[in-house]
Amino acid sequence: MGTERAAVTVIGLGQMGSALAATLVERGHPTTVWNRSADKARPLVDRGARQAATPEEAVAASPLIIVCVLDHDALHATLDPVADSLAGKSLVNLTSGSPEQAREAAEWARSHAADYLDGAIMTTPPGVGSPEMMFLYSGSRTVLDAHRPALEALGDPLHLGAEPGLASLYDAALLGLMWSTMTGWLHGTALVGVERIEATAFTPVAVRWLSAVTGFMTTYAAQVDAGHYPGDDATVDVQIATIDHLIHAAAARGLDNALPELLKATMERTRDAGHGSSSYASVIEVLRKGEGERAGAA
Amino acid sequence: MGTERAAVTVIGLGQMGSALAATLVERGHPTTVWNRSADKARPLVDRGARQAATPEEAVAASPLIIVCVLDHDALHATLDPVADSLAGKSLVNLTSGSPEQAREAAEWARSHAADYLDGAIMTTPPGVGSPEMMFLYSGSRTVLDAHRPALEALGDPLHLGAEPGLASLYDAALLGLMWSTMTGWLHGTALVGVERIEATAFTPVAVRWLSAVTGFMTTYAAQVDAGHYPGDDATVDVQIATIDHLIHAAAARGLDNALPELLKATMERTRDAGHGSSSYASVIEVLRKGEGERAGAA
Ligand SMILES: NC(=O)c1ccc[n+]([C@@H]2O[C@H](COP(=O)([O-])OP(=O)(O)OC[C@H]3O[C@@H](n4cnc5c(N)ncnc54)[C@H](OP(=O)(O)O)[C@@H]3O)[C@@H](O)[C@H]2O)c1
Ligand SMILES: NC(=O)c1ccc[n+]([C@@H]2O[C@H](COP(=O)([O-])OP(=O)(O)OC[C@H]3O[C@@H](n4cnc5c(N)ncnc54)[C@H](OP(=O)(O)O)[C@@H]3O)[C@@H](O)[C@H]2O)c1
Repeated sequence: MGTERAAVTVIGLGQMGSALAATLVERGHPTTVWNRSADKARPLVDRGARQAATPEEAVAASPLIIVCVLDHDALHATLDPVADSLAGKSLVNLTSGSPEQAREAAEWARSHAADYLDGAIMTTPPGVGSPEMMFLYSGSRTVLDAHRPALEALGDPLHLGAEPGLASLYDAALLGLMWSTMTGWLHGTALVGVERIEATAFTPVAVRWLSAVTGFMTTYAAQVDAGHYPGDDATVDVQIATIDHLIHAAAARGLDNALPELLKATMERTRDAGHGSSSYASVIEVLRKGEGERAGAA
Repeated sequence: MGTERAAVTVIGLGQMGSALAATLVERGHPTTVWNRSADKARPLVDRGARQAATPEEAVAASPLIIVCVLDHDALHATLDPVADSLAGKSLVNLTSGSPEQAREAAEWARSHAADYLDGAIMTTPPGVGSPEMMFLYSGSRTVLDAHRPALEALGDPLHLGAEPGLASLYDAALLGLMWSTMTGWLHGTALVGVERIEATAFTPVAVRWLSAVTGFMTTYAAQVDAGHYPGDDATVDVQIATIDHLIHAAAARGLDNALPELLKATMERTRDAGHGSSSYASVIEVLRKGEGERAGAA
């Protein structure tokens, strides 16, 4: 066991790094681990991982180095002292950061002759190892091709392009979608909850409804690309009329209404920009205009 | 044809009412239609519907009367003058409104000896007739049981309970989820769009990501019901640290950041309420506290 699988090093054994290392061990990859607080390696060593005594030893152990620490400061605190030993290695950085930080890290890796792939993990630790979960990558495609079995063990790898900032950019965009969706769902759950409907009763209906919503998104994506938003299904004007039912029902039940009020204001700005008879996709026009332009227009 | 199917009347032939009537005609129900602006009945008559000359004639034509007009004012403007002819009829009201308006309409129908079912259509007109689309109902279960074939022709009917306001309450909660989701998606689409990624390239990834998000929602629904939010997958503190990447990336690209700023502020209030180490489900605690209480606490 393990002789056919490539050796992998995992640096950073927080909740996420531990899940990555555990999955690699489970799939038979000889796995070397290192963490600033050494005790977090214990459960992994019990399962068959090898614990490196230093970051240098960890880097030396494998051709593929996966790093998953808190942020880019922690990444540099850990790897800067051993940067020279990265020459010829494949470095996969699964630490979250901005697109700018990813580009900077790619430059830094290149200056130390390492091949760099940036990544974003689109799941929580319990989802690691499931082929349904997306791992978004950008940067060196060679790294992905050379280490596909190890990276496929973690989840479904999607290579977005050579520009190293792309995975972080998608990550930010998708997390924004997640927070919006989860906050909207929690607001709805609170609303029906006032009438003693349980979250576990409401949520299956909400999940099913979201599959209809993804149908609207698919229709509207083509409209966004065309820059043309025919309102032949439901118009911004109709949505504005309808959101008052939500705002009144929620206010009458004592809920915080900041989210629906913001959504209504955004729709009203869209209408005022001439899109009352357009589809909801036209809201993107006002989202593209930030503070500066709004202040300028006021 | 038509002899086996029950007769149905549709009052209100806007975008939605026309889709309802067209579907019923297509499924072989003898369909009588009426609209304030008579010309909107033309395409339906061409397909085989019968046009009533007055609301009274429309009500008399069928045991099942479906009404879908703009709002409850339009509903009363149309049906108040002919209320006495509703005795013994089944009235299905698919006009959007608040839970309070639905309860009031149910009372009004009862006072005229009509059996009342309130409904909310969880799709746009092109989705009418698809068994995947949900039609939420509340009020008289007898109406649904007696007219199941006609109501199933329109979409999948879900009866939520006898309390007539429930369908509208769910409708408000689900539409809030839709607007949050679509606005978050459009913000993300605008963000990646700055880097010349097309909406039609980003959206399939976003749709796939939403299926992971519905997994989180399902996990968190049980936490909401238990009133206990273990942060063993990802904590509110971790989300707060991460949302800055979105805010900075979007600000650097000139986008309107009101939505992510609001989401961040909501997470910070959740942390300040003692839920930094809890899961995102704990955000519901601050959503349950509206303006009054926040002002009181400040
Ligand atoms: N959890 C999730 O659901 C999730 C999902 C997607 C992406 N991520 C990303 O994955 C990364 C790790 O997240 P996590 O959930 O594993 O966080 P975590 O449990 O808080 O672990 C943080 C890790 O970073 C290390 N670290 C922090 N500061 C350091 C420093 N100055 N020098 C060296 N090491 C340092 C910690 O080492 P010690 O043990 O010594 O403190 C620990 O290994 C983050 O970028 C996160 O955004 C997480
Ligand atoms: N479109 C959607 O995607 C959708 C989805 C779910 C639910 N709904 C709900 O379905 C209902 C109808 O929406 P729609 O999209 O069909 O709207 P619409 O195309 O604007 O049609 C409005 C209808 O209401 C009638 N109406 C308005 N004021 C009236 C009055 N004072 N007296 C009599 N009739 C009056 C109109 O008659 P005239 O033709 O004479 O003006 C027309 O038949 C609304 O409550 C809406 O919220 C719509």
